[in-house]
Amino acid sequence: MTRITVSPEDQLKELKRGAFEILPEEELLKKLKKSFDKQKPLVIKFGADPSRPDIHLGHTVVLQKLRLLQDFGHEIYFLIGDYTAQIGDPTGKNKTRPILTEADVMLNAQTYKEQVGKVLDMSKTNVVFNKDWLGKFSGLDLIKLMSRATVGAILQRDDFSKRYTNAEAIYLHEFVYPILQGYDSVHLKADLELGGTDQTFNLMMGRHLQYSYEQEAQCILTMPLIEGTDGVNKMSKSMDNYISLTETPTNMFGKLMSISDELMKKYYLLLSRKPSQEVEAYVAALTAGTIHPMEAKKSLAAEITGYYHGEAAGKEERDKFEARFTKKQIPDDIQTINKPAGAINLLDLFLELELIKSKGDGRRLIQQNAVKVNFENHAAESLNLEAGSEVILKIGKLRMLKIIVA
Amino acid sequence: MTRITVSPEDQLKELKRGAFEILPEEELLKKLKKSFDKQKPLVIKFGADPSRPDIHLGHTVVLQKLRLLQDFGHEIYFLIGDYTAQIGDPTGKNKTRPILTEADVMLNAQTYKEQVGKVLDMSKTNVVFNKDWLGKFSGLDLIKLMSRATVGAILQRDDFSKRYTNAEAIYLHEFVYPILQGYDSVHLKADLELGGTDQTFNLMMGRHLQYSYEQEAQCILTMPLIEGTDGVNKMSKSMDNYISLTETPTNMFGKLMSISDELMKKYYLLLSRKPSQEVEAYVAALTAGTIHPMEAKKSLAAEITGYYHGEAAGKEERDKFEARFTKKQIPDDIQTINKPAGAINLLDLFLELELIKSKGDGRRLIQQNAVKVNFENHAAESLNLEAGSEVILKIGKLRMLKIIVA
Repeated sequence: MTRITVSPEDQLKELKRGAFEILPEEELLKKLKKSFDKQKPLVIKFGADPSRPDIHLGHTVVLQKLRLLQDFGHEIYFLIGDYTAQIGDPTGKNKTRPILTEADVMLNAQTYKEQVGKVLDMSKTNVVFNKDWLGKFSGLDLIKLMSRATVGAILQRDDFSKRYTNAEAIYLHEFVYPILQGYDSVHLKADLELGGTDQTFNLMMGRHLQYSYEQEAQCILTMPLIEGTDGVNKMSKSMDNYISLTETPTNMFGKLMSISDELMKKYYLLLSRKPSQEVEAYVAALTAGTIHPMEAKKSLAAEITGYYHGEAAGKEERDKFEARFTKKQIPDDIQTINKPAGAINLLDLFLELELIKSKGDGRRLIQQNAVKVNFENHAAESLNLEAGSEVILKIGKLRMLKIIVA
Repeated sequence: MTRITVSPEDQLKELKRGAFEILPEEELLKKLKKSFDKQKPLVIKFGADPSRPDIHLGHTVVLQKLRLLQDFGHEIYFLIGDYTAQIGDPTGKNKTRPILTEADVMLNAQTYKEQVGKVLDMSKTNVVFNKDWLGKFSGLDLIKLMSRATVGAILQRDDFSKRYTNAEAIYLHEFVYPILQGYDSVHLKADLELGGTDQTFNLMMGRHLQYSYEQEAQCILTMPLIEGTDGVNKMSKSMDNYISLTETPTNMFGKLMSISDELMKKYYLLLSRKPSQEVEAYVAALTAGTIHPMEAKKSLAAEITGYYHGEAAGKEERDKFEARFTKKQIPDDIQTINKPAGAINLLDLFLELELIKSKGDGRRLIQQNAVKVNFENHAAESLNLEAGSEVILKIGKLRMLKIIVA
């Protein structure tokens, strides 16, 4: 069995970093102490939708807290809500929740494991499906479960209360979701449930139902949602401001470098896995101006890229970035072509390499000084290649090309 | 198969008598016409609680409409809600709905049949139990059913909306009852559901769900609740103002005679089985003062007593009533005792016959002129019995006694 070696107080300190809230904090500390004294891991619950995941850095905010808990020695239950996924809305008002087949769910679960496995240690993670227990519920069981919660309590949930106030339809089965989610905590006898701030109500329902079933109630830990690369909207696929865990190292690094300095501080708190002390020192230095934001950002981008592609890849991307954008160095893996000596037409070359869509495109690039030859602006459409030379062409911000002249 | 011989218009006229509302009336007429044209009976639903019934005249208001429909040739489904009866409230907040065992339910159902059989022709009545179909529901089936109704719609039910406004707890499973009741209509493919005015919301839910299941929606017919013998409160066992169907003929007749003249008009409309034309004539004559209320009341009391104890019993009670209260006649079955001549103490006699609890009781009766000897007030505690005579003693309003003196 895993030894729990980090003190309860230190565990709590790391859990609190960047967290939105822990409810109730003193209860969690008590649970951590008891778990430490008895060397008995806490049961940690995290629920996921069984629809096909495309996990991005936004999701890792919570996942990394789970990993932290896992590293402390606690028991993670990664719960896939395949039961509720079966509930389509026959009125057709809720197109966002298509009914999934069992095969879909299993496929998605596999994808989850692969993606979540980039953060969690899956060999120590219990992946559970709530259909295993909720699927055994008869209508009567469900009604009895419902008798443990009041309409008033559920209507307090933000989105319900808004819809109710605006006289928008809330279908009755929607009331059942939070209760089923809450029952999952009863079934697992969860000590702590994690989620985004938008999940607070549902997590509290678990607490409520555990009380009702005379269990020790779980604590809850909620994490803020992070903004995406645009710095404004919550990171999400639909806003196209997300950084996927499966991005190429270059894209991941590049996107991370594109965020604002302000957002970077939040990313430091929520996405870095460095100990809190180190992270706090970074943030303080940034605020005091004793470290350059660009340096801090490269360090963070390298760290995060390193998690998902290996530390070496992080370092390499950082070097390449510096080569391109800072030191104008030529990357090792630069695309290289061979040409005979003589004049060439750049527009023809770009078209051939599919770097532009039309000659008009190419002309605009040249006019905008976006084409550089050996790091100098080049304003002409033609270029003279000298025999035996090497020419570095830079097109736009990201594309570089080496021509070896025969 | 029963022939449907009464015209749709005449059926509707009789159904409307005393009814609170028919929704929508034109739809019901259409159904009646179609049923008449095709000689196909309508499916009529009436739901009953499976707790032990003690049916009183208040209940017969709806039952008689069912009987009327049955006499017209329609198909009655007397539905016993044994499914919901299984749902106890584990929070203990709802003590009024104890959980019934299957044996209890079957016993109560038997009692229902016997009591309801005094109004309906049970040989033509389908007694059904909703556990037969709802009992097959899985949790998922139930959730899918719930998705067909909105929270807003259910909160509109009077009692829910009041409780919600007053911030009183409504437990979620309470929301499920109306939906399950509504689903019963879907299962039965009901054309018409009957109930008290307090059931309007639940009956409409059946209509709503039938729409949702793309069935032709049922019409609903609601009947007013009648006041009990006190003339003020709804007839109910708890108010002790009810007339049970199992009362003795004398008690039934006597209680009916005790109601106010105003309430009698309502009873005429709702409890008489005479054709509407006749009833309307009675009520009109009463209003015009061309018939004495006492006469009308005796006629109604005899009619109703006649239903439950045979026509002859109704007539007999009427005669006995007139004998006692109107013509001071001595009833045939008067209690008779033999005494030797001489003075007797009335208090001793009353105690011996268990007519009073104590001598103090007896003295009060005498002081209040409630003791009559041969229909004359008798103010003394002693009475002289003449040899060879017969003495009629009247004690209080109802009790008479004949003493044959030796």
